[in-house]
Amino acid sequence: MARRLLLYDSAISGNAYKVRLCAAQLGLSLERVQLDLLKGEALAPEFKARNPFGRVPFLLDDDFALAESNAILCHLARGTPLFPAEPRRQSLVLQWMFFEQNQVEMGLAVARYYMKFRPDHPKAGAIVEQSRPRGIAALKTIEAHLDGGRRFLVGDYTVADIALFAYAHLAEEAGVPLADFPRVRDWIGAVQATPGFVAMEAP
Amino acid sequence: MARRLLLYDSAISGNAYKVRLCAAQLGLSLERVQLDLLKGEALAPEFKARNPFGRVPFLLDDDFALAESNAILCHLARGTPLFPAEPRRQSLVLQWMFFEQNQVEMGLAVARYYMKFRPDHPKAGAIVEQSRPRGIAALKTIEAHLDGGRRFLVGDYTVADIALFAYAHLAEEAGVPLADFPRVRDWIGAVQATPGFVAMEAP
Repeated sequence: MARRLLLYDSAISGNAYKVRLCAAQLGLSLERVQLDLLKGEALAPEFKARNPFGRVPFLLDDDFALAESNAILCHLARGTPLFPAEPRRQSLVLQWMFFEQNQVEMGLAVARYYMKFRPDHPKAGAIVEQSRPRGIAALKTIEAHLDGGRRFLVGDYTVADIALFAYAHLAEEAGVPLADFPRVRDWIGAVQATPGFVAMEAP
Repeated sequence: MARRLLLYDSAISGNAYKVRLCAAQLGLSLERVQLDLLKGEALAPEFKARNPFGRVPFLLDDDFALAESNAILCHLARGTPLFPAEPRRQSLVLQWMFFEQNQVEMGLAVARYYMKFRPDHPKAGAIVEQSRPRGIAALKTIEAHLDGGRRFLVGDYTVADIALFAYAHLAEEAGVPLADFPRVRDWIGAVQATPGFVAMEAP
């Protein structure tokens, strides 16, 4: 029987977009269920019963359930050049992906979410003020890394580039001008030029 | 020549403790350089020149440099039962480790840091107020997962347990009573009973 990949998805989520981009570049077909995060559908009891993390993306690979965008990228790309098997290179790919969840996502994604989708939230200003500097510092780290003449983060294009591209290319929506990060802009262009690239849909 | 593992370390960091615990259980000897994070030594130019992430833990495995605690755990444990090679199990281990960096670390570690080490910081109260609920929600997710009778997070003991144990067992220092999480407490006890377990040193 054909492998069935079912993605619980959201148009506003950069984390969910990572999975669509990776699947497209691997030639994998995804069935998609759209959740409206702004209406709290990821926390609704019928979804939480399937996915105790209560967030998207969430993948069903036949009967195998997996949460966390970057774990899903590794899962889909394992055995392909996008997730290198060579130990040191794989460790560096993971290094950038953990950095992404701790610093980029908790910086740029959080600031973007409150600026773009929750501007009337009573704490929006304070949350943006705390998260945006983390995102700017993360972009500086990426900029310095790319300054050595690298085209991608770890040798050839990998899931690390997909993971960090998702919110880096949305930095302006978090109030961070990419004009200050020329190497990051070049790298964003390089990701957009990879075979099979698909853009994030406008929510 | 013998493999040389040099850890840039900190007594106050749960992330650095993960690496010491994992190395001890794998029977690997670490040389250690202690940095005083409260004096900003991880951001000092001579350290940042080696480690552009400007944080600990940071590992030199002979000439191979690696940042990010959870990437270091995968690197050290690759090829051992602590980092399972079976694809689905490895994907679940990674799922919990990404969740750790995004929700547990950014919840409990941040709240603990400001409560314990930066109580006089002008934003300490606001930061704790934002991060602690994230940590509590993360512990609820772990509690619900363990409630199915699991002893460890993904089958037998893995680096996922090491990664999540680090800040979960310090939850009270983040102002979160573990009395509310009986399964998490049992799991903490199970981790502490694993062969070769070493406790975190008091800073």
